[in-house]
Amino acid sequence: MSDATERRRARRARHTAAAAAQHMKPITYDLPVYELLSRAGEQRLHDAAMRILAEFGIDFYDAEARAILKDHGADVRGDTVFFDEALIQKYVGLAPRQFTQLARNPANSVTIGGNQVVLAPVYGAPFVQDLDRGRREATLEDFRNFVKLAYLSPYIHHSGGTIVEPTDEPVWTRHLDMVFSHIKYGDKAFMGSVTSGPNAADSVAMAEIVFGADAIREQPALLSLINVSSPRRYDERMLAAIKVYARARQAMIITPFILAGAMGPTTIAGTLAQQNAEALAGIALCQMIEPGTPVVYGSFLTNIDLQSGSPVFGSPESQIGLYASAQLSRRYGLPFRGGGMFSSAKLPDAQAGYESVMVMLPTIMARTNFVLHAAGWLENGLVSGYEKFVLDCEILGMLHTWARGIDLSDEALAFDAFAEVPPGGHYLGTAHTMRHFRDAFYRAELFDYNSSEQWELNGAEDSYTRANKKLKQLLAAYEPPALDPGVEEALADYMRRRKEQIALEPHDF
Amino acid sequence: MSDATERRRARRARHTAAAAAQHMKPITYDLPVYELLSRAGEQRLHDAAMRILAEFGIDFYDAEARAILKDHGADVRGDTVFFDEALIQKYVGLAPRQFTQLARNPANSVTIGGNQVVLAPVYGAPFVQDLDRGRREATLEDFRNFVKLAYLSPYIHHSGGTIVEPTDEPVWTRHLDMVFSHIKYGDKAFMGSVTSGPNAADSVAMAEIVFGADAIREQPALLSLINVSSPRRYDERMLAAIKVYARARQAMIITPFILAGAMGPTTIAGTLAQQNAEALAGIALCQMIEPGTPVVYGSFLTNIDLQSGSPVFGSPESQIGLYASAQLSRRYGLPFRGGGMFSSAKLPDAQAGYESVMVMLPTIMARTNFVLHAAGWLENGLVSGYEKFVLDCEILGMLHTWARGIDLSDEALAFDAFAEVPPGGHYLGTAHTMRHFRDAFYRAELFDYNSSEQWELNGAEDSYTRANKKLKQLLAAYEPPALDPGVEEALADYMRRRKEQIALEPHDF
Repeated sequence: MSDATERRRARRARHTAAAAAQHMKPITYDLPVYELLSRAGEQRLHDAAMRILAEFGIDFYDAEARAILKDHGADVRGDTVFFDEALIQKYVGLAPRQFTQLARNPANSVTIGGNQVVLAPVYGAPFVQDLDRGRREATLEDFRNFVKLAYLSPYIHHSGGTIVEPTDEPVWTRHLDMVFSHIKYGDKAFMGSVTSGPNAADSVAMAEIVFGADAIREQPALLSLINVSSPRRYDERMLAAIKVYARARQAMIITPFILAGAMGPTTIAGTLAQQNAEALAGIALCQMIEPGTPVVYGSFLTNIDLQSGSPVFGSPESQIGLYASAQLSRRYGLPFRGGGMFSSAKLPDAQAGYESVMVMLPTIMARTNFVLHAAGWLENGLVSGYEKFVLDCEILGMLHTWARGIDLSDEALAFDAFAEVPPGGHYLGTAHTMRHFRDAFYRAELFDYNSSEQWELNGAEDSYTRANKKLKQLLAAYEPPALDPGVEEALADYMRRRKEQIALEPHDF
Repeated sequence: MSDATERRRARRARHTAAAAAQHMKPITYDLPVYELLSRAGEQRLHDAAMRILAEFGIDFYDAEARAILKDHGADVRGDTVFFDEALIQKYVGLAPRQFTQLARNPANSVTIGGNQVVLAPVYGAPFVQDLDRGRREATLEDFRNFVKLAYLSPYIHHSGGTIVEPTDEPVWTRHLDMVFSHIKYGDKAFMGSVTSGPNAADSVAMAEIVFGADAIREQPALLSLINVSSPRRYDERMLAAIKVYARARQAMIITPFILAGAMGPTTIAGTLAQQNAEALAGIALCQMIEPGTPVVYGSFLTNIDLQSGSPVFGSPESQIGLYASAQLSRRYGLPFRGGGMFSSAKLPDAQAGYESVMVMLPTIMARTNFVLHAAGWLENGLVSGYEKFVLDCEILGMLHTWARGIDLSDEALAFDAFAEVPPGGHYLGTAHTMRHFRDAFYRAELFDYNSSEQWELNGAEDSYTRANKKLKQLLAAYEPPALDPGVEEALADYMRRRKEQIALEPHDF
C-alpha cells in the first residue's frame, strides 16, 4: 500500500470514528415490553419480599446507616434491620421515576428511566483478552483503550465505570486515574468509585471540577454501582459510598449480586424475592438520607452450575429472572438496570455469541433502562475482551434498528413497487428501492455476508480475526475529544494532591 | 484408556442416546406471546395483502390449478389470478387451526398449531461442513448422519425433510432415498418431496406403506414445504405437489420465500404485505382442492445486503418480519412456520452464535408452531454444519427450559431456605437446595463453565472443537430404532420398482 493510500485510509477512518462518536443516541423503546409475569405473579414476588424484610431483615454493617434507618422507623436489632411494607413504600416512593445524567458533552447526557435504554461497557474485569496477546492482567492503558472504544461506538451511550481494573496502578489511587480517564479520553457520562467513602468523595470532587458543584446537585454527573453483598447484607464500603453519593444527590444503582444456588435459593422465584427485598431496602435507605436521590433498581441475577459451582451466564433461568426483575422495577416506578452481553466463554467463539444474545435480546425486550456489560464481557466477567467488545457493538447496532420497530406508512407498504414489478421480477431497480437504498437495512460491518468463494479469497477469517483488525483500525484512528485546558489542569492538580495525601495514609490489608 | 473403560463409556453413551431419543417432547408455550403489531397495524397488513390480491394478483403456472381457482370464484386472466377478500376468507377459514402429524413412533407424533412449538433440522443444504473435512458437497451418508443426529436429540421434535441434498444420488430418485432414510434411521415425523408431482406421489405411497392408506387420510403423515417463487408466482412443480398432497389430505407449509430488496420491496412492511397475499392465495387453493387440508402459514423472510446483494441472516429486520408474520397467522387461525437458527457465517464462530440466537429467540417468543432450520444452518442455508447442529441443540435445550416459565409456588419461594441461611451465608447446603439439586437448572454440555485454569488444562478448546468431539460420540453411539422387517422390505421393494421405472423415463434439463 502506498503512503498516500495509507494516509487517505487513515483520514477516512478518523472521519468515520469522529462521525460515529457524534451520532450516539440512546434507544427510545416504544415497542411493546415483554411482560413475563401476570399481575398476580408480580404481587406474589412483592409479597414474598415484604415477608423477607419483615421476618428475616437485612444486615447493614454501618452504625450511622442503622441509626438513620432507626430514626426513620425501621426496627433495628443488632446489625439486622427489619422493615414493614408501609415504610418501604413510603421511602421507595420518594425516588424519581427517571432522571438525566450529565455528560461533559451535553449532547451525550442521558435520561435514565422511562422508555430509554442506555448501554454501557463491561464493568469490573481484572483481566483483558485479545487475539494477539491472549489473556493477561488489565492495565491503565487497557482501561484507556476501552474508554476510547466506548467513545467511538455510536451504540454505546455511556462510558461506564471500572471497565477493567488497572492493576498496574496502586489500589489506593487507581480510582482517580479511572475517573480522570473517563473525562479525558471520552465525553460520555460515567460512573463514580464505590470502593470506599473517600473514593466516592474524590469522584464527586472531580465531577464538581468538570460540571460545577451546583450543577451536579440539580442533575447528577455520577451514576455509581452499589452492590449488595447478598444474601441480605450491605457492607461498610458500600454504605460509606451510599452516604457520600446520596448527600451529594448523585445517582446510584442498587444491585443485589445473586447467583441462584449460592447467594440465593436454588429457584428463580426465591432468588427474585430475595433480590427484591435487598434492592428495596437499600433504595429506601438512600431516600431516608436524601429524599429524591436518583436511584436505579438493579439486578445481577443468574445461577450457578450445580455440578461445578461455577456461575453460568446466558442461561434460560437468567432470562426469566431478568424479565421478572424489570417488571418489578416498573411496579415500583423505578428505572431498571439489568442484563448485558454475558458469557462464560473464554474467548469470542460460538458459545460467546450464543450466550450473549440469549441475555442481551431479553435485556432490550424487558426495556432495561441502564445496561452495564453491554459490550466486552467474557469468562464470567473476569475478562474484558477487546474483540468481544467490537463484536458486541455490532449486535447493539442491530438492536438500535430493532427498537425502531416497523414503519407501516403508505410509503413503506410500497404499492408503487408492486405496480412496477411483475410476478417473478426483481425489486432492486425500482424507484421505491432507490428511495430507500441508503438506510433501508442495518449492515453489520464485522459479520461476513460474502459468498463462500469470496470469503475464502478474503482469507477465510472467522469473526474473531475480523474483529481484531477492526479494533486496531479504531484505536489507530482515535482522536481525543477536546477538553478545556483549565479543567484538565484542575483535575490533574486535584489528583496530584490526593495521591500525595493517600501516600501518607495507613493502609490495612 | 483400558478396553473395559472404553466399553463402559460406549455403553453409557448408548444409554444416554437412547434415553435422549425417548424423551423428546415438543415445547408447550404458555408464556405470553410477543406481539409487535397493534391491532390497527395487523389490519393494515391484512388490507394491503387484500389490495395486492385484488389489484395485482398472483400467477399460477398450472392450467388445472387455474381452472380450480376459476371454478371456485377467482378472477383468472391469463396466468394471473385475482382474489377478493370474501373469497380468501371463505377458503382460508376452512383450514384447521391445528392438526396432528403422525410419526412411526406414536410417542413422537406432533401437534402442529395452538400453543405447540415443533423444532426440525435445517432443510435444503447442498453442502455440509465440519471441523475435520471442511466444506464439501453433501452425500446420502451425510443425510443419514443428520437424520441420526435429529433422532438422538431430545430437543429436535421432527426429522425434517431435505436436511441436506444427497448429491451423490441421481437427482431423479434421491427423494426415495431421503424418505426411506427418515423412516429407517429415525422414528420422528418427516416431510415429503416437493420436487415434482410424481415425487410427491412417491412420498405419499411410502407413507401409506408405513402408516396405512386410511390412517394418513385421518391424520397426515407428511408435512411438506411448498415454496412460493416470490414475487407472486406459484410454479408448476409446486402446484403439482400441492395437488397431490391436498388430494391425499397431507399437510403443507405454504411459504413465500422473500429476501426484502430482491423478491420483495426494500421495506419490511411492503414485504410482509406481499408475503401475506402470496401465502393466503396458496392456502385458499389447497382448501378449494380439498376442504380441511392441513396447512401451515409459512414465512421465510429476511433482507439482502444492499451493498453486495447477498442475503443477510440474523438481521433486526428479519426479527420484525417474524413477529409480524406470526401475528398475522394467528389472526387467520392458522398454524405458523418461521424462523430458525439462521446465520450468514461460514463456520460456527461468534458470528454464527450471535446471528442464530438473534432469530431463534424471537422464533420462540412469537410462538412459532413449526420451526424448520432449528439446527445446523450455516452460510445462508447453503451449508448444513455438523458442529453447528449440535451447538444449536444446546440452545434449543435452553429454550425448552425458558418455555417452562417461572414456578411461583410456595416451594419455589423458598422460605425455609431464607430461614436457614443467615446474611452472608451460602444456599448450597440447605435442605431446599437438596430438594431441587437434580433438576434446578439447565446445563449445556458443550458450553464451558470451567475456570480459565481448568479450561486451559482441558486443552483450551473453543466450542467448535468441543462440538466436534460430541458429534463423533453421538454418531459412534447411535443405534437405529427398531423397524418392522415387513415394512422395511415393502419400502425397499417400492423403491426398487420406482427406480427401475424412473430409469426408463425421459429427463429434460
